[in-house]
Amino acid sequence: MIKKYLLAPGPTPVPESVLLAMAQPIFHHRTPQFEALFAETAKSLQGLFKTAQDVLILASSGTGAMEASVVNTTSPGDRVLVVNGGKFGERWGKIAAAYGLVVDEIKVEWGTAVDPAAIAKVLKAHPDTKLVLMQGSETSTTVLHPVAEVARITRETGTLLVVDGITAVGVLDLPMDELGIDVLLTGSQKALMLPPGLAFVALSEKAWKAVGASKQPRFYLDLKRERDNQQKHTTAWTPAISLIFGLHEALRLMFAEGLDNVFARHDRLARATRAGAEALGLTLVAPTAPSPATTGIYLPAGVPGKLVGYLRDQVGITFAGGQDQLKGRICRVAHLGYIGSFDIVTAMAALEMGLAKFGARLQLGKGVGAAQQILLEGMPAAPAA
Amino acid sequence: MIKKYLLAPGPTPVPESVLLAMAQPIFHHRTPQFEALFAETAKSLQGLFKTAQDVLILASSGTGAMEASVVNTTSPGDRVLVVNGGKFGERWGKIAAAYGLVVDEIKVEWGTAVDPAAIAKVLKAHPDTKLVLMQGSETSTTVLHPVAEVARITRETGTLLVVDGITAVGVLDLPMDELGIDVLLTGSQKALMLPPGLAFVALSEKAWKAVGASKQPRFYLDLKRERDNQQKHTTAWTPAISLIFGLHEALRLMFAEGLDNVFARHDRLARATRAGAEALGLTLVAPTAPSPATTGIYLPAGVPGKLVGYLRDQVGITFAGGQDQLKGRICRVAHLGYIGSFDIVTAMAALEMGLAKFGARLQLGKGVGAAQQILLEGMPAAPAA
Repeated sequence: MIKKYLLAPGPTPVPESVLLAMAQPIFHHRTPQFEALFAETAKSLQGLFKTAQDVLILASSGTGAMEASVVNTTSPGDRVLVVNGGKFGERWGKIAAAYGLVVDEIKVEWGTAVDPAAIAKVLKAHPDTKLVLMQGSETSTTVLHPVAEVARITRETGTLLVVDGITAVGVLDLPMDELGIDVLLTGSQKALMLPPGLAFVALSEKAWKAVGASKQPRFYLDLKRERDNQQKHTTAWTPAISLIFGLHEALRLMFAEGLDNVFARHDRLARATRAGAEALGLTLVAPTAPSPATTGIYLPAGVPGKLVGYLRDQVGITFAGGQDQLKGRICRVAHLGYIGSFDIVTAMAALEMGLAKFGARLQLGKGVGAAQQILLEGMPAAPAA
Repeated sequence: MIKKYLLAPGPTPVPESVLLAMAQPIFHHRTPQFEALFAETAKSLQGLFKTAQDVLILASSGTGAMEASVVNTTSPGDRVLVVNGGKFGERWGKIAAAYGLVVDEIKVEWGTAVDPAAIAKVLKAHPDTKLVLMQGSETSTTVLHPVAEVARITRETGTLLVVDGITAVGVLDLPMDELGIDVLLTGSQKALMLPPGLAFVALSEKAWKAVGASKQPRFYLDLKRERDNQQKHTTAWTPAISLIFGLHEALRLMFAEGLDNVFARHDRLARATRAGAEALGLTLVAPTAPSPATTGIYLPAGVPGKLVGYLRDQVGITFAGGQDQLKGRICRVAHLGYIGSFDIVTAMAALEMGLAKFGARLQLGKGVGAAQQILLEGMPAAPAA
């Protein structure tokens, strides 16, 4: 008997009440019943993005929303700046190339955050840059990029700031309008605690102006057409109905907890994970700019990358491994979405026990104890005697 | 956001595949379809009880099966011997009294097991004793009683040994026919990993002879009538259909794991829990005869019984408290049914953190680490490099 624990940075565990909401009988989407549900859900999404703009719901993975961000705001031959500090930054470059854009790239050392001054420098050299394409949280390197600082630069220019918030929205506070993010997007299977299948994207006024001028070919991902429909509480194409049932419930859960509490929980779980790893003498992948969504940990000398597969297949604990140059060298422990204190206790205990099985010398319970010390912050005080 | 963990000695967590089995559309019970399912399920129950006798399925809680055991095998005025070492032993006495039986009682100090010699002595003094009524595992005191040794005594006499196996069947090996248990019963919401609502009871040949002579009034709990029906793969009264869907799946899971592995898992989780408690300097309620189903732990001086309610309501961890003279003094951590290694890690971490919140001085992670050391036994060896 192996119980399964999903502690990878997406898909993340789905709460029971969301599963039940998605299990309700499908009803037709061209109905007042669906439109009412859709309207309520879209309004909650605005609260989550902290924007007065429409947050469009797409039946796609997060990559669909990344592509939509590019194809709706550019024309072939336009210049864009890609912040490439990992696998997802790299993806921005691939999408831009697929649509005939001229790509400037800032290569960021894996495990570190982009320096906003480097972005300012490129924009000064190339004031015709249409988009800055970056991640809020770069999942592959477990790095948090300084979105607010970058927005402070772009909002003084004609350049649009496009933020892939796939492991950032709902994890930390990223108030779109206040910061001046021009395009913010995310997917369903991360902090939104849903299965994969939905993506969300919102555009600033400045970005919508660019949509008007854009000459990229597009059809399924045509955001203007989506907005026209969604302002009437329906979608251009068939929506993923059951996922929207789930989305409605997931947003209800997030607002019931309170967004500030949601953000504080993610921060606490991330700090506990880092404290646990450090107590075990392990090295963090992103010590200076760690993401609150997921923590990358270098495996100690002598422990092979197959630890991750062993824990997943033989112990029931799904962490993520590393990609490209980090392949086989790290383990990524995620703590976003429907994750609580005892998931971190489980993660740390499993990591310790897995390392022990692979011959690492460590004191069982030491990492757990260090994590517990921080997790205590999330427990209410004991009642008076 | 509070995730819930059910770590009380029943109801226990229900596996996802069992929940899904129970969610399938109801079909009618007087059909070949139901009879086929019922026949297969009843056969698996015989494998679990390790008996060639019919294991009857009742739509009742475990107490219904306790009462059935008494009313089908006695007549008013009969003499019975009750082993009373806790709340459930006490219940045997109440049932016997309700049916006009003459009750001898062996009072067993809470936290200790019955001495088989004491039973032998009473049976020698009163050879007309019809039943010995005992628990396999006394949940209220977390004690394991020596059923095999008691059976060795009763099987040489005309007395029937009736064992409440509610937190024993499926937890440890209790081979009914081999040991010579005359009546063995259990409920659905313990090691069988189901919601409450079903009970199971099997009778030896010797017990069925007593059924023939019994003059107690009975109707719903008439086991002869049930046997006549269940041998035809149906039930005397309307069965709890969805629970039987779940039972079929739960038994499939248990046999897929392998009964020996199920028993070894319970033993390992129990030893880990005890090791964790002892590493924290806590005192066990039943140190000499601990049950593999649940571990009773005395709260340290200065920590009030409200720890249990605090962990349940404010942290999401449901342990059981104490009853009667143990009320407010102990915490019972259950480890039966759909419970794995990381549930014990969670239990121990929560206990440590709860104690810390109530001002106990302890090293966080110390109990967890001691538990982990034993839980490592349940993890496969790491693959070769």
